[in-house]
Amino acid sequence: MTANRQIVLAELPGGARLAPEHFRLNEAAVPTPGEGEALLKILYVSLDAANRAWMQGATYRSAINAGDVMAGGALAEVVESRDPSLKPGDLVFADTGWQEWAVLPAKKLQKIPRIEPLTNLLSVYGVAGQTAYFGLLECGRPKAGETVVVSAAAGSVGSIVGQIAKIKGCKVIGIAGGQAKCDLLVNELGFDAAVDYKAGNVFKALRAAAPDGVDVYFDNVGGDIFEAALFNMNTFGRIACCGAVSGYDGSAPPAGPRGVPGLIVTKRLNVQGFIVSDFYDRLQPALAELKGWVDSGKLKVREDVLEGLESLPGALIGLLAGENIGKRMVKVA
Amino acid sequence: MTANRQIVLAELPGGARLAPEHFRLNEAAVPTPGEGEALLKILYVSLDAANRAWMQGATYRSAINAGDVMAGGALAEVVESRDPSLKPGDLVFADTGWQEWAVLPAKKLQKIPRIEPLTNLLSVYGVAGQTAYFGLLECGRPKAGETVVVSAAAGSVGSIVGQIAKIKGCKVIGIAGGQAKCDLLVNELGFDAAVDYKAGNVFKALRAAAPDGVDVYFDNVGGDIFEAALFNMNTFGRIACCGAVSGYDGSAPPAGPRGVPGLIVTKRLNVQGFIVSDFYDRLQPALAELKGWVDSGKLKVREDVLEGLESLPGALIGLLAGENIGKRMVKVA
Repeated sequence: MTANRQIVLAELPGGARLAPEHFRLNEAAVPTPGEGEALLKILYVSLDAANRAWMQGATYRSAINAGDVMAGGALAEVVESRDPSLKPGDLVFADTGWQEWAVLPAKKLQKIPRIEPLTNLLSVYGVAGQTAYFGLLECGRPKAGETVVVSAAAGSVGSIVGQIAKIKGCKVIGIAGGQAKCDLLVNELGFDAAVDYKAGNVFKALRAAAPDGVDVYFDNVGGDIFEAALFNMNTFGRIACCGAVSGYDGSAPPAGPRGVPGLIVTKRLNVQGFIVSDFYDRLQPALAELKGWVDSGKLKVREDVLEGLESLPGALIGLLAGENIGKRMVKVA
Repeated sequence: MTANRQIVLAELPGGARLAPEHFRLNEAAVPTPGEGEALLKILYVSLDAANRAWMQGATYRSAINAGDVMAGGALAEVVESRDPSLKPGDLVFADTGWQEWAVLPAKKLQKIPRIEPLTNLLSVYGVAGQTAYFGLLECGRPKAGETVVVSAAAGSVGSIVGQIAKIKGCKVIGIAGGQAKCDLLVNELGFDAAVDYKAGNVFKALRAAAPDGVDVYFDNVGGDIFEAALFNMNTFGRIACCGAVSGYDGSAPPAGPRGVPGLIVTKRLNVQGFIVSDFYDRLQPALAELKGWVDSGKLKVREDVLEGLESLPGALIGLLAGENIGKRMVKVA
């Protein structure tokens, strides 16, 4: 415990695709907590498409700049506390950045109960599961018998969205890249159908899979897939906008989907953007309901755990290319 | 009363701009009502951007085809009734089409009380006023002190949206084409500011007029102006999508606004498409409130009344080019 290895964002990617050379390894001293702070040992770092969005400028979080320790959320354990609210051994979720050790003010730490396996705290009980839960139920508002479509369906959020929609009695179609992911959705996670966006025209494939139209679309990607879903929406349909990963890794925002706002009018759609923290006042009952589904086997948790701090840049680059199935994270400690 | 002059849609404009040659004058016999029907004398035909949208295919209404009497709503008077619910002299609103006489089933007629001047029944108490009222209050949900922006602000709907927003205590900015319209908005209708979209960059002009951002955007136009408003929206803003006139008169839908869905997520926007008939269960109290505002002088009614059946094609073409101020209609009888 003499050195703190860190991954620094050496250079902003700007309009380029994110690449390993945008990062570098750094070694710093392990920091010492001041009054009201805690020293954290980082166990698992969460990989999220939002990591890339933060490099584009301020969003709901301030932008990351060149030379900063790369930002990211992690599950961490309190090793030393100088705040009465925390004691060694407590588990917390925090924006620690990509490093082995971090000192943060206690008030910036979200204390979480120890549930085994700990990785579940970053997947189904973490931001991914919470995002799926609130986005689908609060913004999508699916009713039994309706048709729900989710993009990035084999990803951390999408794989949970589809399963919750099934629990709610909906017909569920996932959009994912490649036959392997599509097979997984239908054969292991109980989706009714899957559309491989790499295999051809998504609009036509969705129309074939959902001949009665789409009532709820949970969007994780934006772009052409958003457009394909939009043109398949039913009157009074709902679109939950969770992220636009297709626009994150590259230059200025591309042209938006055709049919906006024309089809939103004629179909009387409701399009709602959200971020999971908007719903934190209702977090505890949500986690309890998710845990009930997991414990009863109704909700299967898929995780993709990589090893070692130095694997973080590649893990993010691969996530943006869609290589993961389920929640991707890196075990650091 | 021996002939019924009609304007027929001679040819669908397809991807072209609507032009006089797409219409022709026709003469037919005055129709005779059957059981359950009424013969209507058409008084005023309403001109709406939606007239053009109907030529592009089915929307919330079936498409218009070449050879059909041009579709359109009108204020009409019952001349002969073969249904117990109607008697001669009753006023109705109906989809009569562009002609002097029409026979329609009584159940397709919306009976309306006689309020003078009759033109108000097509403007502030008609679809325009109802659309402004429900779209702003139900979809935009403005709160006192918020900033409301409306496009096509000098038009039939926009001119009422802005005035209702002022009644509700908001700061109101109208977007319109040309200095004359902008002057009217500020000097006669009480808007706080106006942006001339023909005079330069709308995004920058809006930013200057609304330095604290936009909370509610009432969209009548889509396209670049939608995009300019989107980039000025505040967190948790609402966009009421009423129409997309910029996309009506031309070929296939153009690329959508940049920032969709990315900014919808990061700003947690709610985007709601609507059509006035969605709110008809609440029509009577809405009309009563509108009438109260008109009678007390809080809401000024602007109308643009042209004369004669044969002026209808030019009236629609001009409306699509934005030449009207306030509600455009044609006096037929």
